[in-house]
Amino acid sequence: MDFGFDPDEEAYRQALRQFALKSLAPHYQGDDKAARLRPGLVADMAHMGLTGLRIREEYGGQEAGAVVAGIAAEEVSRADFNAAYVIVITALISDVIERNASTAQRASWLPPIASGETLPALCVTEPGHGTDAAQLEMRAVRDGEQWRLDGEKTSITLGMSADTAIVLARTGGEGARGVSVFYVDLDEHHVKRTQFDDLGARSIGRASLYFDGLPVPADRMIGGIGEGFVSVMEGFDYSRAIIGLACLGAAQVSLDEALQWARDRQAFGQPIGQFQGVSFPLAEYATYLRGARHVCYEALWRKDKGMPHSTEAAMAKFWAPKLAVEVIHQCLLTFGHLAYSTESPIGQRLRDVIGLEIGDGTAQVSKLVISRQLLGREFAS
Amino acid sequence: MDFGFDPDEEAYRQALRQFALKSLAPHYQGDDKAARLRPGLVADMAHMGLTGLRIREEYGGQEAGAVVAGIAAEEVSRADFNAAYVIVITALISDVIERNASTAQRASWLPPIASGETLPALCVTEPGHGTDAAQLEMRAVRDGEQWRLDGEKTSITLGMSADTAIVLARTGGEGARGVSVFYVDLDEHHVKRTQFDDLGARSIGRASLYFDGLPVPADRMIGGIGEGFVSVMEGFDYSRAIIGLACLGAAQVSLDEALQWARDRQAFGQPIGQFQGVSFPLAEYATYLRGARHVCYEALWRKDKGMPHSTEAAMAKFWAPKLAVEVIHQCLLTFGHLAYSTESPIGQRLRDVIGLEIGDGTAQVSKLVISRQLLGREFAS
Amino acid sequence: MDFGFDPDEEAYRQALRQFALKSLAPHYQGDDKAARLRPGLVADMAHMGLTGLRIREEYGGQEAGAVVAGIAAEEVSRADFNAAYVIVITALISDVIERNASTAQRASWLPPIASGETLPALCVTEPGHGTDAAQLEMRAVRDGEQWRLDGEKTSITLGMSADTAIVLARTGGEGARGVSVFYVDLDEHHVKRTQFDDLGARSIGRASLYFDGLPVPADRMIGGIGEGFVSVMEGFDYSRAIIGLACLGAAQVSLDEALQWARDRQAFGQPIGQFQGVSFPLAEYATYLRGARHVCYEALWRKDKGMPHSTEAAMAKFWAPKLAVEVIHQCLLTFGHLAYSTESPIGQRLRDVIGLEIGDGTAQVSKLVISRQLLGREFAS
Amino acid sequence: MDFGFDPDEEAYRQALRQFALKSLAPHYQGDDKAARLRPGLVADMAHMGLTGLRIREEYGGQEAGAVVAGIAAEEVSRADFNAAYVIVITALISDVIERNASTAQRASWLPPIASGETLPALCVTEPGHGTDAAQLEMRAVRDGEQWRLDGEKTSITLGMSADTAIVLARTGGEGARGVSVFYVDLDEHHVKRTQFDDLGARSIGRASLYFDGLPVPADRMIGGIGEGFVSVMEGFDYSRAIIGLACLGAAQVSLDEALQWARDRQAFGQPIGQFQGVSFPLAEYATYLRGARHVCYEALWRKDKGMPHSTEAAMAKFWAPKLAVEVIHQCLLTFGHLAYSTESPIGQRLRDVIGLEIGDGTAQVSKLVISRQLLGREFAS
Repeated sequence: MDFGFDPDEEAYRQALRQFALKSLAPHYQGDDKAARLRPGLVADMAHMGLTGLRIREEYGGQEAGAVVAGIAAEEVSRADFNAAYVIVITALISDVIERNASTAQRASWLPPIASGETLPALCVTEPGHGTDAAQLEMRAVRDGEQWRLDGEKTSITLGMSADTAIVLARTGGEGARGVSVFYVDLDEHHVKRTQFDDLGARSIGRASLYFDGLPVPADRMIGGIGEGFVSVMEGFDYSRAIIGLACLGAAQVSLDEALQWARDRQAFGQPIGQFQGVSFPLAEYATYLRGARHVCYEALWRKDKGMPHSTEAAMAKFWAPKLAVEVIHQCLLTFGHLAYSTESPIGQRLRDVIGLEIGDGTAQVSKLVISRQLLGREFAS
Repeated sequence: MDFGFDPDEEAYRQALRQFALKSLAPHYQGDDKAARLRPGLVADMAHMGLTGLRIREEYGGQEAGAVVAGIAAEEVSRADFNAAYVIVITALISDVIERNASTAQRASWLPPIASGETLPALCVTEPGHGTDAAQLEMRAVRDGEQWRLDGEKTSITLGMSADTAIVLARTGGEGARGVSVFYVDLDEHHVKRTQFDDLGARSIGRASLYFDGLPVPADRMIGGIGEGFVSVMEGFDYSRAIIGLACLGAAQVSLDEALQWARDRQAFGQPIGQFQGVSFPLAEYATYLRGARHVCYEALWRKDKGMPHSTEAAMAKFWAPKLAVEVIHQCLLTFGHLAYSTESPIGQRLRDVIGLEIGDGTAQVSKLVISRQLLGREFAS
Repeated sequence: MDFGFDPDEEAYRQALRQFALKSLAPHYQGDDKAARLRPGLVADMAHMGLTGLRIREEYGGQEAGAVVAGIAAEEVSRADFNAAYVIVITALISDVIERNASTAQRASWLPPIASGETLPALCVTEPGHGTDAAQLEMRAVRDGEQWRLDGEKTSITLGMSADTAIVLARTGGEGARGVSVFYVDLDEHHVKRTQFDDLGARSIGRASLYFDGLPVPADRMIGGIGEGFVSVMEGFDYSRAIIGLACLGAAQVSLDEALQWARDRQAFGQPIGQFQGVSFPLAEYATYLRGARHVCYEALWRKDKGMPHSTEAAMAKFWAPKLAVEVIHQCLLTFGHLAYSTESPIGQRLRDVIGLEIGDGTAQVSKLVISRQLLGREFAS
Repeated sequence: MDFGFDPDEEAYRQALRQFALKSLAPHYQGDDKAARLRPGLVADMAHMGLTGLRIREEYGGQEAGAVVAGIAAEEVSRADFNAAYVIVITALISDVIERNASTAQRASWLPPIASGETLPALCVTEPGHGTDAAQLEMRAVRDGEQWRLDGEKTSITLGMSADTAIVLARTGGEGARGVSVFYVDLDEHHVKRTQFDDLGARSIGRASLYFDGLPVPADRMIGGIGEGFVSVMEGFDYSRAIIGLACLGAAQVSLDEALQWARDRQAFGQPIGQFQGVSFPLAEYATYLRGARHVCYEALWRKDKGMPHSTEAAMAKFWAPKLAVEVIHQCLLTFGHLAYSTESPIGQRLRDVIGLEIGDGTAQVSKLVISRQLLGREFAS
């Protein structure tokens, strides 16, 4: 067993912390107020290799393991929780392309993602029926040498800023077999975008994208016609543990700040940290954070070892955001009015992290996944 | 025992619900965006008698009991959580004046509060040392026929909108005995106000007030010189139960909305309310809400009966806001992205209610009050 | 609203507390070790009117309301949690007889229950399929002027000590319509009893009863052939709130003891109650106990007023035992090894109360009842 | 990072599981009823090397790391929670001797512990003032070539069965400096033992030992006069993580059993595991168990690496027993009456594990340790 990072990982972690403190933290709250992805953020992250973590070196990526991606998400989110979405999405889409696209496609598409030139999005969810392939309504119709895409995708992370997108669309037939996968340029003439005005994660720009006959060259299809739905939708599991670490990073930095406050703030003649009513909840949460963090890294370690990890990823997905919300809430109360003011980042972290309790799988779905593993596949269906 | 309202109370409750739905609910979210107390709100509430609940009839008030004030807070907060602050503050200040002021003062000051012409605030808290009388720094210096007030009060609820204020200021000597109490007009030339940019309760305008030589006529002092601090600070307890009911009202309406959604929203071929993973948390919270609500009303009933109620008020103060935050959070997750969008009021309720976890006494202070009653006065000092 | 007892109720409560302290408390732990209902216990309770609470005065009962029965259960369980079962069972069976039996039957059966001469049990549950009428297997076959009962009933509360029992048996046909109801004498020749060796509630003697051709006179049938199943099974709801109060009584007395210990026990130079890590959990639990207790009494008050109360009774049934287990567990930890020793009653209370988390309806069943009320009858079916 | 056991550890774990299932599990419940350490248990455990885990090979031990000791505790406790105490105590006392005793002492004392010939106990705690060195009252008086020990030690784990004991006694002077350490034979003529009649851990025989002039040869002192108190009391931390794993082992096996029941037990026409109200709590607890287990192993891994681990050990000590109690309680409720009967081991596990919530450091003490590390040494003093 080994619960520590190796020296390379540790050095990487420290370098990232420096970068994040210097380049990300100062913008965290301003970007929330601006409610848009800060110009230059993706380039800055790309410069640190954060957009190409899961891309092989020949395409300009870091060829990093899942554990390293987790370290990146954890450290980045300490400074700017929302920036961690860029890591999650680029890693996820790199993986889809790497696993499913042809050599020519990979060579063409991955380098600009690694370099930060292109920011991709994942367009699966549709209004009213989520990610159920059987009900997927977006159509792709053959039009000579190209396809035309029509329909609406919703709740698209980074949807306002993405240059490209993996899109699932129905090319014919019912069910998952009638669905094909494209990697498209988001042409502003044929794709209208609307941003949701959300409680948090406001700089991310969750959006609806209305495709109105977007032309897509035939060579932008991944796999063959009607292929690829299942393969695209597989392999997402480990990203849930990265999301978990992003949430825990935001919680841990809030806890660190609350501890500092408990040391400094005087009340009734002593630092408030002397009161067990103040210190014990922080001690308890420090403990639970430790446990949840290990579960997240276990999922990523299993991914890197080629072991099954859906259960651990589902554990990470329901527990880490929930715990992070509790911790951040407790830290906010420790500060009192000081953190109720938006001069403190803690209230924003609370708003932001709630977004990842919802996105990418509800707690109920995660518990169904865990139940199935615990009880057998015929359960919790 | 009787766990129901009498017919008058019930009729009043229903009338208020109609009023609140029609006149308050439509503005709840807009006032948050505007971040200021809506012009006309106090007048509308006064028209319903909500600013004079605790003022005797001869001064134009309702002469209502504490239970009735609780009903008012609960119903109003279902529609507009922040409007409930107006009830809490006007009741509290009416009580201070009623208990401590002379007949002439009462006759002069209470009618305009009842009529909504005057909105008062309570100026006790100072930067750095909260409400500790021993450390109170604001000075009142005799200047001929009047006093001059200098210093800063902070975290003043309704501080941006109040016309008048109860102010505690040091007239001489150390400790509580050196502190006198004034009821002042907030003259804009001598009182500079700064609004906090808060996570929630944004329409309320929590503010800092800088008093720069505010002239106060001698007959605006309540009680004699150096008197009144203790008497002013007493009798606040029951307002904590009203705050508790405001929080529970916001939680209950969120639960009602989530239940409706659980009936209507289909997933996997059935309403989501059919899944125990969705319905059981709602059933549990409905139960805890019932219990917490009874504790709040018990405190108010005890107040009306002239019985001790500090313990029950402290129970209400720590439990009701905490539970309300949990319930609203769970309801938000039940809706998912639909409630993460600010088109839904649920996220705002979460932000708003957290403000009353902090304001008017932390959970730790409440638990100290309870501990003292349970263990004896020499404990938890 | 009224959260207090009236003077008669309060006097009754105090009289019961004296009785319970003197006559019940000294035997609580010995009866557990003996694992049988103490001879004389029922007579002692009958002497205080506790076996005839719900029986009308003309039959020697108290004709008490449900609230009064709740007071009795709460006070008795402070001294001897298991004695509260006698109250629950006699009240429940009195109600069944009162509602469903003929005048002659009532006049014959109720007086000996009120006087404590006869201790009744309720025989519904069968091995393997619980209380599902459709699957009920016990047979009642006509044999001249009488019936013969064959089959097994299990998990029968007070099953080792009961003299009589309400028995549901199949007289013909399928489903609830094929089931009739009898009030029988538990003849030792035709009824073999086996006691479960349980974690707690050991003096109660949860038992299996094997009926081997028990002869039952025809006039011991309640209602007509195939009638009565539904009517018998109705009206049980309020007893769940009485169970809830029994659990809360055991929790409250444990809390009282833990508070006394926190006052007296010195550690690190001061009473341990001075440490917020000790006192705050007790303050929190005192609060939740207050809330849960009100919910229990609300159910009983509604019963007495003829109002629907299934929801409140289900709330009481899942919350009160669960909370009581948590409170008692916390009190045990407050004492430490002192309460781990069986010289303290606290560990026994923990073992005993867990029995009523299970008996008379699981938490899941209670939450289904609540969900149905919240969401509509078509839900949670 | 590495969250798995290496092949040797895994093989050891599996061998232990087989041993424990075959040799320990069949006696778990009988030993509870007998309330004494089963003759032959220590020999059986010694045969598997479990009494010499931390003893070097030259003395007949396993020279195992802390992680391996954790594996042993976890696997043993799945079969017989109380047998894990033998591992904890022998490891702890071996460590004390190894660190503090002379070569001759080690060579004389450790082999019989490794071989199971001698079962040692740790005699520190005294009635009324626990483990506070400053208040330690047991006296050791020089009597020619030997010492005489007088006084009482209490709450001694394995106190009824131990052959030898590490004893702290006052040889002169006040405070820790006046205390010396002995390794003594528990002569039945000079040491009277009384067993506590406890809620659980009944086979362990928590006992009070009254020393009445026990003669102790001079060469049984560890270190010099007045030395050794601090060194003896140091180095215990990691055993708290072993205790944690013992608790988690009992919880995990209960969860495994509850899952099997949820697969098999039918209700309302399907296995109860199909109901989210049943399966979700089990999925949640499986998650938390995973996290807590990692925290325990992290503490042991840090110990093996020579890294600080007091914080992690304190996290393990408060969280693991608390979580285990919750898990076992939930599993008991999943089974219902089937596990309320003492035919099931689950109720006993609940009773047993509560003993380790109390023993070897309360939750409050553990949280103080964590707070101190989080806030600084001057805090939580």
